Amino acid sequence: MTEIKDKSIEVFLDELASKAATPGGGSAAALMGAQGAALVSMVCNLTIGKPKYSAVEEDMKDLLTRSEDLRTELLAMIKADVDVFNKLMDCYGLAKATDEQKAARSTQIQTVLKEATLVPLACAKSCFDVLLLSKEAAEKGNVNVVSDAGVAVMSAYAGLKSAALNVYINAGSLKDREFAEEQLTNLKQVLASADINAEEIYQLVERKL
Amino acid sequence: MTEIKDKSIEVFLDELASKAATPGGGSAAALMGAQGAALVSMVCNLTIGKPKYSAVEEDMKDLLTRSEDLRTELLAMIKADVDVFNKLMDCYGLAKATDEQKAARSTQIQTVLKEATLVPLACAKSCFDVLLLSKEAAEKGNVNVVSDAGVAVMSAYAGLKSAALNVYINAGSLKDREFAEEQLTNLKQVLASADINAEEIYQLVERKL
Repeated sequence: MTEIKDKSIEVFLDELASKAATPGGGSAAALMGAQGAALVSMVCNLTIGKPKYSAVEEDMKDLLTRSEDLRTELLAMIKADVDVFNKLMDCYGLAKATDEQKAARSTQIQTVLKEATLVPLACAKSCFDVLLLSKEAAEKGNVNVVSDAGVAVMSAYAGLKSAALNVYINAGSLKDREFAEEQLTNLKQVLASADINAEEIYQLVERKL
Repeated sequence: MTEIKDKSIEVFLDELASKAATPGGGSAAALMGAQGAALVSMVCNLTIGKPKYSAVEEDMKDLLTRSEDLRTELLAMIKADVDVFNKLMDCYGLAKATDEQKAARSTQIQTVLKEATLVPLACAKSCFDVLLLSKEAAEKGNVNVVSDAGVAVMSAYAGLKSAALNVYINAGSLKDREFAEEQLTNLKQVLASADINAEEIYQLVERKL
């Protein structure tokens, strides 16, 4: 089967729109994060080598390395979301005729639910990292493409808020409440910082247009 | 040349990240809008035909028609952004040796700048329409996929805020200030309504999770 990243944009959107359970919002979240990272890279690539920006040359090279790493991570997360969803569906499909089977099935579901909580949480965190990189791109990058840093921040923010919804769903079904609350607290901190930063970066971009 | 929609997601992101001027933030904005529309369609497709949701069957069919129309529109806008950018670059490349050439070049630039203002404005409006559809999807659709309606609203909102940046840039360079101000007023109204709606719809989704 063709991996999502190798499908055309039109085919990906057709499959997203269809009644198939995957790909869904989790993959869409990772794609927005990856798109944000790509736009930060674009700003770097259109800044590096320009005499006018020689003072920030090293910073932009470093920024590019980080945005490209995040892009690779987030691109892989488009598939990771589908994989963990399918794994969870397989667990729900396990036999539950006897008490023993029921117990085994429940244990399995709970194990995979933890993974299905951590996958979108990792996506949310990577989107947050992209958001912070877009700030540096907006501050130091070629002002002619500052709007692309603005699109990067909106993509990353939307990816983060979207991934958060999948954390809520799966954490909500966890019996290990200590584990669940730990992840939710973690997410809450990221979201609070993202709200403030996204607004600030977008306004910075508007001022520089 | 392969049209963007027919390129793989990975190749699209590679080209976005590269130092080529296109595709850029305008195409990324349209893609986010199209993705939002696809997610509204997904919610519809996973609601239609379910006995539990028979009361909203006709509403969901109607919603699906509208979301699919918007998806088609926004998918075409991924390319429209590149086309108008290239057209503008061609104008800037026109001869400017004589006063006559200078005047002709300036007139041409101003004509295409109007188009380059209207293209992202149309994208912003279509994203706003998707945002409103995501509200109906969140309210009436299958509650098991309400998170996808939440991702739809974030995608559409990010697409709108991203397209807005390109309206600002091009409207800012217009000499016909009456035309420019008319488009900016139009955009401002859409943005104000979107800010309120996006927050409300996202919170509605959170409550239904």
